Order: sequence, then C-alpha cells, then structure tokens
Amino acid sequence: MNYPSGVKRSGKTFTANSANFIDYANRGMKLEDDLNVTNQYYLDMDVACIYKKPTPIKITKVNYPSRDKATIEQAFFVTPSTTDYNGVYKGKYVDFEAKETTSLTSFPLNNIHQHQITHLQTVKKHGGIAFIIVRFTILNETYVLFEKELTYFLNHEKRKSIPIDYFRKYGFLLKDKFNPRVDYLEILDKVEVF
Amino acid sequence: MNYPSGVKRSGKTFTANSANFIDYANRGMKLEDDLNVTNQYYLDMDVACIYKKPTPIKITKVNYPSRDKATIEQAFFVTPSTTDYNGVYKGKYVDFEAKETTSLTSFPLNNIHQHQITHLQTVKKHGGIAFIIVRFTILNETYVLFEKELTYFLNHEKRKSIPIDYFRKYGFLLKDKFNPRVDYLEILDKVEVF
Repeated sequence: MNYPSGVKRSGKTFTANSANFIDYANRGMKLEDDLNVTNQYYLDMDVACIYKKPTPIKITKVNYPSRDKATIEQAFFVTPSTTDYNGVYKGKYVDFEAKETTSLTSFPLNNIHQHQITHLQTVKKHGGIAFIIVRFTILNETYVLFEKELTYFLNHEKRKSIPIDYFRKYGFLLKDKFNPRVDYLEILDKVEVF
Repeated sequence: MNYPSGVKRSGKTFTANSANFIDYANRGMKLEDDLNVTNQYYLDMDVACIYKKPTPIKITKVNYPSRDKATIEQAFFVTPSTTDYNGVYKGKYVDFEAKETTSLTSFPLNNIHQHQITHLQTVKKHGGIAFIIVRFTILNETYVLFEKELTYFLNHEKRKSIPIDYFRKYGFLLKDKFNPRVDYLEILDKVEVF
C-alpha cells in the first residue's frame, strides 16, 4: 500500500468491520456512495429528485435461456457522453459530475472527459445548473465548482490540473454532515442560481 | 408473422433496403430511433439538451485482460427506477418515458413500471415537466400525454389499459415530420408549461 508523501498512516489497527476502516481499494466509490445516500435523502424528504445515471455499456452478446431471463454474456464499458448525475430541484434542471482525487495539490483534468465538460457547458447554455463536485480524499475536502468557474479556468490556464487553491477561492466547500452527507443543494440555495 | 385483426397486409413487396420497409422484428426500436434522431437534432440546433439514459444493468463478472480493457462477462438487466429520457429545455427539467404498442384500441399499462409512474409524479411535484410518449404503431399515431392526465386516469379508472380515445381527447398528437421526427418540444411550447 503506497501512501502519498506527507501523509502518515495512523497507528490505529484497521479492520474491515471497524467504523474507522478506510477501504483504499474501494476509495473511488466513497464519494459516489455519499452522493447516493444524499440523493436518496433528498428524494425521501421531498427536497429534490436527482439520480445517478446507469453506467453506459455496449452489449455484444445476450443469452435468452427463457422469455424473461436475459443474461448479458459480453459487454464493454463505453465512454459516457454526458455526466453521471442529473435531476430536478425547484423546477430547475441540475447536472453534475463527481470525481475524487488522492492528490494533495490539484485535480487532474484528465479525470473528466472533454465531452462531459462540453455537456456541462451545453446544460448551462440551456438554463440548467451545471457543476462538478470534487473530493480531495486525503485532505477530506469536497468542493462544488460551477461550470462558469470551470470554463474560466479552462479558457485562461494551460495547466492540465486545477490547483486546490482555485477550488478554495472559486469553489464552495461542502461541510461534512451526517445527513445529507454531501449537501450540495445547500450551495445552490446560497448562490444566485434561483 | 401475425397481424392484428383488422389490419391487412399491404400487397407491396418489402425489401430491407426499401424506404417503405417495416422491420417488424425491430419494431420496438422505431420510436426510440426517432427520439434519438430528434434529441440529436435538438442538441445540434441548440434547442435543448435531452438524452436517453443508458440501460441499467447489474454487472456480476468482469474480466480485465489489460489495464484499460475491461470486458463484462456476465450481467443482468435490472428494473429501471426512473424513466428513459431526461434533460433541459429553456432551463426547465424535462422527463419522459416512451413506449410503443401494436394495439389498435388501447395502451396496456403494464408497459410502464409502477415506479416509473411514481417517478413522473415526483418530477412534476418538484416543478419538472413530466409526460409519456406513446406510439400506436399500426395506426401510426404518436401522442404526448402529460403526467397530470396520466395520473387522473390512474386515479379514476380501474382499467389496465388507456383507451386510444383518452389519448385523442387529453393527449397531444405528434405530427409526422421529417426533422425533428417527433417534435415533442413543440407540444411543450403550446401547452401552458412555460
């Protein structure tokens, strides 16, 4: 297990059942899990209706052993043309992509496909609310960065990663909460999107 | 090939390359194809940004022959929790399900899952625009029926299918057009949704 420089492993003993256990192998799932719980909370509390889209795949072989039991026997992951999350909040269309990075200093832009960025820009053009949620996992800092500030960075910087200071200055820090875990709609309420 | 009673097969000879050819085996794809072309048109013409969601599946076996080449070797179709289409039009959230039926008289409600209907109701509650698009393929009539009228029918009728007369009275007929093929946004403009 490689730890990034500057981060010391805690002396604690981790077990898979411990509440403090961090499963590094499944780290990429963590923000996604938090968002799933958050979106379910929004739905249950009648706040908003936002879902994660299914992973796009190309099915190449299907077996139908019986009328209603189809088994996919071969399929491939395909590059998504849109972002992972969208839905409705107070009548408005909301659309975002969520990513994690273990970097301590910046968010590598190759984490997001070019057409996903184009998609966010298109959404904004049509009056929707578009943003990215980026979690710096080691720092435990999660930011909302709206499409406007994302596009500004892309148009004015040649760097292939967005420094964390840019998120600190132009993004919105999501506070750690019990429920909803990542309350990004709170940010939308604060900003002038409505 | 079974034809529904009341419909006579035309005397024409169909070939796969003929413009008049109707591929009965792929009939279920037809409305979906029309919608894909329509949504692409909306996107290209800067009218709206509406996509079909990927089919939800549960992956049970993946093979990684190399770092970037993952092959899904076993997966199953799962019941979708939402509808197939959503996106943004004039800032508003748009959400719908599209179905075809070969029936000449009514649209069988078992074509739509209960949680898809609930989803459309939730979308409406949050201020989104929710509807179904139903095509009667033999009659070549395609209707937009808004959530309000769908819910009204479900609350007041015990029938397990919606008669075509209900669509004719409370729905909106989509005219056959060359491009966009199924111009459902035209209906949204006509109705009091904005």
